[in-house]
Amino acid sequence: MDKAIIVLQTDFTYMEGAVASMYGVIKSVDSSLQIYDATHEIPHFDTWSASYRLIQYVRFWPKGTVFVSVVDPGVGTMRRASLAVTTDGYYILSPDNGTFYHLLKEKKIEKIYEIDIEKHRLRGYSTDNVSVFHGRDVFSYVAAKLASLQLKADEVGPSYPLEEIVGFNEQDAYIEDSTIYGYIEIADPNFGNLWTNIPIKLFHEAEYIYGSMISVEISCNKNVLFCKKLPFEASFGYVEIGELVIYQNEMNRIALAISRGNLVQEYKLGFGPEWEVRFWI
Amino acid sequence: MDKAIIVLQTDFTYMEGAVASMYGVIKSVDSSLQIYDATHEIPHFDTWSASYRLIQYVRFWPKGTVFVSVVDPGVGTMRRASLAVTTDGYYILSPDNGTFYHLLKEKKIEKIYEIDIEKHRLRGYSTDNVSVFHGRDVFSYVAAKLASLQLKADEVGPSYPLEEIVGFNEQDAYIEDSTIYGYIEIADPNFGNLWTNIPIKLFHEAEYIYGSMISVEISCNKNVLFCKKLPFEASFGYVEIGELVIYQNEMNRIALAISRGNLVQEYKLGFGPEWEVRFWI
Amino acid sequence: MDKAIIVLQTDFTYMEGAVASMYGVIKSVDSSLQIYDATHEIPHFDTWSASYRLIQYVRFWPKGTVFVSVVDPGVGTMRRASLAVTTDGYYILSPDNGTFYHLLKEKKIEKIYEIDIEKHRLRGYSTDNVSVFHGRDVFSYVAAKLASLQLKADEVGPSYPLEEIVGFNEQDAYIEDSTIYGYIEIADPNFGNLWTNIPIKLFHEAEYIYGSMISVEISCNKNVLFCKKLPFEASFGYVEIGELVIYQNEMNRIALAISRGNLVQEYKLGFGPEWEVRFWI
Repeated sequence: MDKAIIVLQTDFTYMEGAVASMYGVIKSVDSSLQIYDATHEIPHFDTWSASYRLIQYVRFWPKGTVFVSVVDPGVGTMRRASLAVTTDGYYILSPDNGTFYHLLKEKKIEKIYEIDIEKHRLRGYSTDNVSVFHGRDVFSYVAAKLASLQLKADEVGPSYPLEEIVGFNEQDAYIEDSTIYGYIEIADPNFGNLWTNIPIKLFHEAEYIYGSMISVEISCNKNVLFCKKLPFEASFGYVEIGELVIYQNEMNRIALAISRGNLVQEYKLGFGPEWEVRFWI
Repeated sequence: MDKAIIVLQTDFTYMEGAVASMYGVIKSVDSSLQIYDATHEIPHFDTWSASYRLIQYVRFWPKGTVFVSVVDPGVGTMRRASLAVTTDGYYILSPDNGTFYHLLKEKKIEKIYEIDIEKHRLRGYSTDNVSVFHGRDVFSYVAAKLASLQLKADEVGPSYPLEEIVGFNEQDAYIEDSTIYGYIEIADPNFGNLWTNIPIKLFHEAEYIYGSMISVEISCNKNVLFCKKLPFEASFGYVEIGELVIYQNEMNRIALAISRGNLVQEYKLGFGPEWEVRFWI
Repeated sequence: MDKAIIVLQTDFTYMEGAVASMYGVIKSVDSSLQIYDATHEIPHFDTWSASYRLIQYVRFWPKGTVFVSVVDPGVGTMRRASLAVTTDGYYILSPDNGTFYHLLKEKKIEKIYEIDIEKHRLRGYSTDNVSVFHGRDVFSYVAAKLASLQLKADEVGPSYPLEEIVGFNEQDAYIEDSTIYGYIEIADPNFGNLWTNIPIKLFHEAEYIYGSMISVEISCNKNVLFCKKLPFEASFGYVEIGELVIYQNEMNRIALAISRGNLVQEYKLGFGPEWEVRFWI
């Protein structure tokens, strides 16, 4: 069996030496391991976004890839440090603080283990008594041991029931009386687009087709903040610069954008289960 | 023949999962491929900057390197998805939307092919009907096939005449009556320096030497916005902190800076062919 | 002997083509070399921060790793371009401008060499007369030669006495009359925490224990800007969100934070030897 690739995701940014310390630990376990950065710019402490990013990119990697997600406001306290093994053959290391939620909801998690952090922890660097950087001292170290085949998943610590995985409250998208209901699941923080949790197949069911004008209403905690009738198109490029558009995003879900503009900033909209959205013709 | 290195350039930033998805696609084609990031912080939709960055760094890489540039506001519409092969042995994948311009102008492009995106496209990930992410579904996928020697350049699709490559209108730098004319070709967005399109050899022709005081005038659409007499030096370090300087940049072109300051922000200057500059003694 | 890994640190950001040029130079010397980025977001021209980051992450990497630090406001002037060899087997390439200071203070530097930049410099890319980018033309090039075993440390140029290494003035932390004195050594620019130069062992000596309330005073150039009595805990998670805490950071030094907040921004505090701090019960 080949050694696995390691992919890192944190809210540490690239501004200081934390990420470089994590790389160093991995390379010191096995200098031949490949490391890639998914992102180090998850919004601070935002385990919802950390969870969402995993369903965005994990599935495109080779089976066996080891992912490390460290968005960890509870580091050093009682939260579990865990390893999830997915049904499609990936390994995800993270604090169990919501980061596993979207994978769990997609029924991708097969088993979850609590890492025994006294047993599996970097030693010999005078960091034994450090409580604040499990990204370096536990997660990167265990990831390197797994990826280099020096440790097996079921050796990191005891497994526990999937039901105990920390989650969030939200509801699936649905159709009722020809109206489609969902919520704004995430923002594209770069281009300022908004991505809903509504799968394209609900638009197909409702027989909404490219070129149609569709009404959309967005509310936050029941306050309506956005209400417009917009074109539904295959890509932003089908509307004029500065115009709004409903489109099918790269996750096969319904999204909203301003062509070459920033919808999030211009309308001050956010994301999360409290940001409800509905579409109708 | 060895497998090629892949180098990525986009306007996606490092903030979300788009870049990680591109890496994943490449690694799933061939997990031994090396991937490096040139930058993911090209200004949004700015194909001029994308084009300029290629002439800044491509030539320093080993021959055979495969570059992927995705600044792609027209994704999913009729713009061509293309592969350029350079006279010095590099491969550049990009939408043909201006990104090939500076290489073309330097006569570096030998052949250009339009990728047949129905034939050469990621399959098996339920992304067949996604129109908005050719960076992942087409460019990264084809780059990986090329770099791993599973596909040859002339197999990606039909070639087309170099004359059809999308470009920009601008004029070369020149000397007239002992005055040197050019424009601000790009900003250094980090240090806030301004880089002109004027090659150092025009300064040599005009017999401007280090230590001289040289007049410089910058105008935008014929409005003069900056006019000063400044020292011409080999590096910023030759003037006091906070002082302005004309210097020869790393591209062997004439540039302007404030020593340890930010010229772009302080004087609110921009770049592009409409930002004309002239130098005289 | 295996080829060494190369690790880069600069103040160039990821915004333009400078880093990609450095990678290209390294790969053109030997395309099998591994390159990792520590950070390219050192504050502009801040050699103190560059110096600090090295002691944060270097020691976690495999012995033999070659580090390149380019925070280089004096590029092209008379400052030395140097190679330090550490007592624990690392190689650090940097301008000698303060960047070697913290390693020197920790007695980690065994030898230092001044690179003969006329002899050891990228050739054949029309950059022979460029004075402003030693990161590309000297440091990356020499790093690649060292890492690929084509050059030995003592071949880069003459060694010079450690006493000539450029440093800073500051004083070690100490205890006097049960009060602990030190300064704010660095900020965590991401989470906004402040890290002092006070080792945890001084807290042990003073018998401060987790759960105690400890007084802390911060002054800048003798002006008191912050004075509070705060809990001392193993991690941020032990206090409520928004509350301040004294904790032991990942460097085994005393640090200050707002739980899930940004102390630096909220109290407008800085770092460096003039930012004195004292603790007492």
